[in-house]
Amino acid sequence: MRETARSIRVSTMHSDPSRKYRPFGQIDLPDRQWPSRTIDKAPRWLSTDLRDGNQALIDPMDAEKKQRFFDLLVKIGIKEIEVGFPSAGATDFDFISGLVRSGRIPDDVMVQVLTQSRRDLIETSFASLEGAKQAIVHLYNAVSPAWRDVVFKLGKDGVKDIAREGATILREQAEKYPDTDWHFEYSPETFSTAELDFSLEVCEVVMDIIEPTAEKPLILNLPATVEAATPNIYADQVEWMCRNISKREHVVISLHTHNDRGSGIAASELGMMAGADRVEGCLFGNGERTGNVDLVTLGLNMYTQGVDPGIDFSDMDEIVNTVEYCNQLPVPERHPYAGELVFTAFSGSHQDAIKKGFAAQEQRNDELWNVPYLPIDPRDIGRDYEAVIRVNSQSGKGGIAWILEQDYGLKLPKRLQANFSRTVQELADQTSRELSSEDIWGAFRQRYHLDGDGKYGLEDYQESQTGGERIFVGKVTGPEGEITVSGRGNGLISSVVDALSSSLGVNLEIMDYQEHALGSGKDAQAAAYVECRTEDGKEFYGVGINSDVARASVEALLSALNRV
Amino acid sequence: MRETARSIRVSTMHSDPSRKYRPFGQIDLPDRQWPSRTIDKAPRWLSTDLRDGNQALIDPMDAEKKQRFFDLLVKIGIKEIEVGFPSAGATDFDFISGLVRSGRIPDDVMVQVLTQSRRDLIETSFASLEGAKQAIVHLYNAVSPAWRDVVFKLGKDGVKDIAREGATILREQAEKYPDTDWHFEYSPETFSTAELDFSLEVCEVVMDIIEPTAEKPLILNLPATVEAATPNIYADQVEWMCRNISKREHVVISLHTHNDRGSGIAASELGMMAGADRVEGCLFGNGERTGNVDLVTLGLNMYTQGVDPGIDFSDMDEIVNTVEYCNQLPVPERHPYAGELVFTAFSGSHQDAIKKGFAAQEQRNDELWNVPYLPIDPRDIGRDYEAVIRVNSQSGKGGIAWILEQDYGLKLPKRLQANFSRTVQELADQTSRELSSEDIWGAFRQRYHLDGDGKYGLEDYQESQTGGERIFVGKVTGPEGEITVSGRGNGLISSVVDALSSSLGVNLEIMDYQEHALGSGKDAQAAAYVECRTEDGKEFYGVGINSDVARASVEALLSALNRV
Repeated sequence: MRETARSIRVSTMHSDPSRKYRPFGQIDLPDRQWPSRTIDKAPRWLSTDLRDGNQALIDPMDAEKKQRFFDLLVKIGIKEIEVGFPSAGATDFDFISGLVRSGRIPDDVMVQVLTQSRRDLIETSFASLEGAKQAIVHLYNAVSPAWRDVVFKLGKDGVKDIAREGATILREQAEKYPDTDWHFEYSPETFSTAELDFSLEVCEVVMDIIEPTAEKPLILNLPATVEAATPNIYADQVEWMCRNISKREHVVISLHTHNDRGSGIAASELGMMAGADRVEGCLFGNGERTGNVDLVTLGLNMYTQGVDPGIDFSDMDEIVNTVEYCNQLPVPERHPYAGELVFTAFSGSHQDAIKKGFAAQEQRNDELWNVPYLPIDPRDIGRDYEAVIRVNSQSGKGGIAWILEQDYGLKLPKRLQANFSRTVQELADQTSRELSSEDIWGAFRQRYHLDGDGKYGLEDYQESQTGGERIFVGKVTGPEGEITVSGRGNGLISSVVDALSSSLGVNLEIMDYQEHALGSGKDAQAAAYVECRTEDGKEFYGVGINSDVARASVEALLSALNRV
Repeated sequence: MRETARSIRVSTMHSDPSRKYRPFGQIDLPDRQWPSRTIDKAPRWLSTDLRDGNQALIDPMDAEKKQRFFDLLVKIGIKEIEVGFPSAGATDFDFISGLVRSGRIPDDVMVQVLTQSRRDLIETSFASLEGAKQAIVHLYNAVSPAWRDVVFKLGKDGVKDIAREGATILREQAEKYPDTDWHFEYSPETFSTAELDFSLEVCEVVMDIIEPTAEKPLILNLPATVEAATPNIYADQVEWMCRNISKREHVVISLHTHNDRGSGIAASELGMMAGADRVEGCLFGNGERTGNVDLVTLGLNMYTQGVDPGIDFSDMDEIVNTVEYCNQLPVPERHPYAGELVFTAFSGSHQDAIKKGFAAQEQRNDELWNVPYLPIDPRDIGRDYEAVIRVNSQSGKGGIAWILEQDYGLKLPKRLQANFSRTVQELADQTSRELSSEDIWGAFRQRYHLDGDGKYGLEDYQESQTGGERIFVGKVTGPEGEITVSGRGNGLISSVVDALSSSLGVNLEIMDYQEHALGSGKDAQAAAYVECRTEDGKEFYGVGINSDVARASVEALLSALNRV
């Protein structure tokens, strides 16, 4: 077999890209208005997830997956749904005509189908929608020089003829099926790489035939079929079209951006600021090559600016799961809002700021969300706070304290946090992996001997009062077996300290003592923390957890003793 | 245990986001210049991939992975590399001081370390770099209201004091290590959500102490710590800073964008247009939460505009593999330029346009890249054309023909393409999955009986010439065993057709016949294609492949006969 192009591997970048690639030209629009505008209302959304042929899935959706995806889109509130390319083959045609007959299209949802400008394809498209209450037929043909020269081998007039012919057949077919409320969309495909005035000319040709009105406007969709410039250029192009199209109020300007340069979101947002009314895209930015613009990010970007997107993202996990199942492609870990890691802070300083933010939020007690490093409240999209703070060797005491508080109810004093974080740091360095909540809890129990595995353990104790004095008598198991210790003081703690001093010869000075309830009701426990110093100035920390608040304190002292 | 926040799952989106979130305000810059500018040269690049503590990897890189990543960055031409946060812990400190001592930092590469504004941390940072030829120490503190109020609990003066103190210690420490050529970077962290005039004030405080010059400028890095607005806002902020900073020529304006709203790329690009000189980011956009801006996409975006990014992406697979190994996170399938699917067309119309584009490119024979749907030549980044066209049920004849030509050298006539594509379509519908090149080749061999498994097979034949006539005598195996067929005509084909008619009673009319060489040299074969019609008007196609051009033709006819 001959040596084919596919078996050749070239590994040198073109040393001078300026000979191989040309910069995209500026748009002459010095008085552009969009950079001073903001997005203050949601556009009409069109999901093109089910335009399967062009969405470039390795394994295209079958009818069951298409139906699931459709149902999801309806559930979250998408009102315009492109359901396929009926003339592409039996799979799409059957799905579409089955969907129409099934009665699963709600009254306020419009399905849309895509067709090239050829009589047989358009006829098939209308046939697939027979019986629909309302529908959009979306006609397209490419208009840019590269397509005219290379693909169609036609001049400008030839391309206009294609559009004119298609639009004429649209009207004719619509008359053939008078029971459906027909809407039309026209896309000058490759708009973003075509001459603006020519795109306008072609759109006007289509408008002349469709004769849209303010009540029944024509959707003019402006595709960045391949993203080819910085997103400000697309915004300029959109603003130019909005300004120059005749009868602006008779058309709905629609955006259709791709992500070849990683700027699909920005192009759509700036395009909305430039005057567009409608946005086409896919959930999580699926679509051919680098994908269409991501409707989830666009919608939530609006939401975080106080603008209701009209899409319900409250159960993000369900959306992710359904889309991953249907597309057989994962939503990346760092995907805005939806990725597994996007609310996660591993680093100590971030964790600390987030913790302070949550505390301030609680204290302020207003509705306004303002937590460092978290652009949205994870709960708004059905995520809990579980993943916000995760611990590895990069984490500080704040994150560890957060986890112990969130999962185990412990409110560690500041210096105890620092003391314990060294243990966690060592563990993380040793294991070289993320530590789970259980890892941290296990290390905590071990470090402070909460499982009775210390040198000294408390068997039982009695506490009595004589005059102003407390007398403590305790049974303690130690290296030499069970011993009885006793001491006195002006309170429980001081009497135990005295007992340890007189019976075991260990002199501890209490530097700090804190205790709080763990939970509430009859099953509530108490957690006690002590910080002590020995005569030679060393500091030790102890923790006790017990259903009895007094015993918890005594155990905390023994816990500290075990560290001495 | 008490019911904790983590066990509560809330599943209703805030019905009125305007009560929970506030829109980001406009920047007052009506005469902004950036929307009319283009990017015409590469910025200084800084990779912050190794700032591990904030890059939020589930399993942080160990020293071996850090070293590999560093070596990759050097190899592809990154000249400024943030190598860590030396005061964060032993892992970072040891790696950095080891790297400095190892001599693996090329003379034209500057390493950078990050530090908060505290004496002990800054001292540790300098200590980690002892012996470096040159280095950047990067000081930061947050400046925005949320951080001042919630995290620091300090007023504006307090925040300026933090910056002043840090800058002072920078100068002091630099004097302590006179053998290193020290450079400084200051980041007003959370710049994008702070008051512009206050950020400026803080930067001026730092400049007053550092006293930068045009020869030794201060890097002023403007972080969008959390992306909080559309990217035009960030560009406005950057242009405002560039215009209002004193001694603009004494500072290098640096960008550091994140991707919380999916617009990190756009923010950096518009920021460059707004006047920035330097860009910080990570390969494939790793980084905390949704990640830092992706340097690969930014660089290749420039490249496709004819601007040399100064980074060598010619072996993209090596870059992807190394980064995936070190980060333990995959590069998504639809990631611009680098994803597995971004050059792939499955749909018939896309495949057709690409095929025509390649043909036109070859014909034009100039260097300029202009192929529909492909924003960059995959070979520029070391990818071959293998993945450009892949076949599933959404694909048309163009894609199938392309694969058979690229992989097996066959140039199928148009109508044969259409004929065979129905077979592939059925196979794709049946299997509901992507078809490999081998699948298609297998189907082709089976469909046209290239493995001698048809009803009739050619054993041997002789060809003689008498007068103007060709006489064909062939031994053919058929359902009744071996038979001899003979016929005559004005050429090989017509004599075979005559033999089939007179000996087997099958009358074929030849509609089209094509043949071409497969490969070259003495191992070359020939492929012959025939299109025939039977008396009742049905059409049949046959294919023959043989090292002998004549025998290939005869086999093609028998192949067609086998379909009758």
